[in-house]
Amino acid sequence: MDVIEPVAWTDDGGGLRILDQRLLPLHETYRELRTVGDVCDAISTLAIRGAPLIGITGAMGLTLAARTPPAQHPLENVVDAAERIRATRPTAVNLGWALGRMLGVAHAAVASGHDLHACLIREADEIRAEDVAMCRRIGELGAELIADGARVLTHCNTGALATGGIGTALAAIYVATEQGKRVEVFADETRPLLQGSRLTAWELRRAGIPVTVLVDGAVASLFRADKIDLCIVGADRIAANGDVANKIGTLSVATIAGYFGRPFYVAAPSSTFDSSTACGERIHIEQRSAEEVTNAFGVVTAPAGVAVYNPAFDVTPAALVSAIVSDRGIHRAPYDFSQQRQ
Amino acid sequence: MDVIEPVAWTDDGGGLRILDQRLLPLHETYRELRTVGDVCDAISTLAIRGAPLIGITGAMGLTLAARTPPAQHPLENVVDAAERIRATRPTAVNLGWALGRMLGVAHAAVASGHDLHACLIREADEIRAEDVAMCRRIGELGAELIADGARVLTHCNTGALATGGIGTALAAIYVATEQGKRVEVFADETRPLLQGSRLTAWELRRAGIPVTVLVDGAVASLFRADKIDLCIVGADRIAANGDVANKIGTLSVATIAGYFGRPFYVAAPSSTFDSSTACGERIHIEQRSAEEVTNAFGVVTAPAGVAVYNPAFDVTPAALVSAIVSDRGIHRAPYDFSQQRQ
Repeated sequence: MDVIEPVAWTDDGGGLRILDQRLLPLHETYRELRTVGDVCDAISTLAIRGAPLIGITGAMGLTLAARTPPAQHPLENVVDAAERIRATRPTAVNLGWALGRMLGVAHAAVASGHDLHACLIREADEIRAEDVAMCRRIGELGAELIADGARVLTHCNTGALATGGIGTALAAIYVATEQGKRVEVFADETRPLLQGSRLTAWELRRAGIPVTVLVDGAVASLFRADKIDLCIVGADRIAANGDVANKIGTLSVATIAGYFGRPFYVAAPSSTFDSSTACGERIHIEQRSAEEVTNAFGVVTAPAGVAVYNPAFDVTPAALVSAIVSDRGIHRAPYDFSQQRQ
Repeated sequence: MDVIEPVAWTDDGGGLRILDQRLLPLHETYRELRTVGDVCDAISTLAIRGAPLIGITGAMGLTLAARTPPAQHPLENVVDAAERIRATRPTAVNLGWALGRMLGVAHAAVASGHDLHACLIREADEIRAEDVAMCRRIGELGAELIADGARVLTHCNTGALATGGIGTALAAIYVATEQGKRVEVFADETRPLLQGSRLTAWELRRAGIPVTVLVDGAVASLFRADKIDLCIVGADRIAANGDVANKIGTLSVATIAGYFGRPFYVAAPSSTFDSSTACGERIHIEQRSAEEVTNAFGVVTAPAGVAVYNPAFDVTPAALVSAIVSDRGIHRAPYDFSQQRQ
């Protein structure tokens, strides 16, 4: 597989080189982030998106705060930068998790007299390497759920464009395909930002996997036409009871899959598990700007000034989830995410 | 209420004046249709849409065939034109129904030596007047289902822009509002052509009714947040068993409403009842062009050449429909559409 690198160090090591995902599928354009402000901007505008990739980019981006002058108070610089980066996407638990880990290393480095910048770079590289391995493990486990000839519906983008490796939900499809299984994917477009049609369709075609695009409203029609064997989606945060926060539209897909009696699987790294949140009702959901709905891609699609309901995520209750695949195993209700593979 | 006239005769009587709905909500532009070809083009490109309005426009448009020279074989001209118009939207039963009625009048006029053109104009005016009365009647009956303070989800556009009168599903909302009830409407945008955000939101705002727009994928989130009391949508064709063909996305809304235990109502003129079709599986569903999905409003939203699933309609099984409101009454399962109000 031709590997996509959605985030990397620049050749001079002084910044990040990212694939600007807002321009896909028309343009494959890379740009450089040189400051923490650039990193925050890239995350909040969704040039970089996907929960695991946000975590990696946040960690890599935080290293810029340790080298930016004035370095008189380097630790304070790093702590402030971590807060700014964390605030860009409050629902994505991986971001907070990765930044927390980086801050732990920063404090230890300063306390022990080690080079702060070098320690942070090493930790960010480690977070990325772990993500690559986690994606592979999720893919191997998830592939067990995909039979030869399966027709799979997915939502949003959970592939190489969303992670440091081959993805989460799409990793299962990639590994199943590597194993010689024939898999046909249906990608709903995932309004408002169309990650399904713009990103998932783009990376699956690039990998030679058959993919069909549809509008989100056509999902139920697809099931009624008996074209889907199973669904697999990602997650941004998973509560202790198995409730899943994920891209807006996920709950619609899960509800419809349940009505038509087809399995609905969630695939996510174990860093997405949030044991401190008992259930989905406790998960904070960002509301995004009205313009994403009323002004789609520069075209006016609703009357000026109309009220808009535009949450970034929804919460799928555990009752609608057939199983959760993580790097720790295939989990089923009642959930105990602290355990290894059952 | 400031009445919108989506189709009318031109001042000189030699053509049709239509509101080009493709340009809403940004531009309220009217244009003239002078030939049967213009009429076919307006219907097939969705400049005119909405099942009842298509029927009215087809009937009015057919009169142009009776005055277009050469009028050596005026009846053959009209019969040919009816076929061309009918073929533009095969699923919309009102179109076939209205054209059939016009052809009956055409044959009778020629057989009895009456003026063909005058008879057709009279019949088209009659079809339109009946539609206005039907909308009013549907609105009055449908309003009984809407309580004061109701929060109503609707799909696509079923209002003044879809009919000769105040609409079908939206008629219920208009009449409930006239009765002094406070009604809050949620309009899903209805991809691919966004009739919800472009048309429904536009006409409700014009009528002073509170409306909130959301992407289709956010429907389930809206229910889970307990923001919806009932759904009301239109229909393009209703089978004898109560299965409902309507704009793609309707089945998704119905499935979700069912899961969350909220009523799902369908409002449509009795001309939409198709007693010759036993059930939804027998309804022919048009597939529309891939570009509606991949090239939304001139913006590339999917990789070139990707496969697309883009049916114009879906079929909601009668089991998911709480009641059907027509000009004949409020119908509930088991359905017998030949009866008057129960």
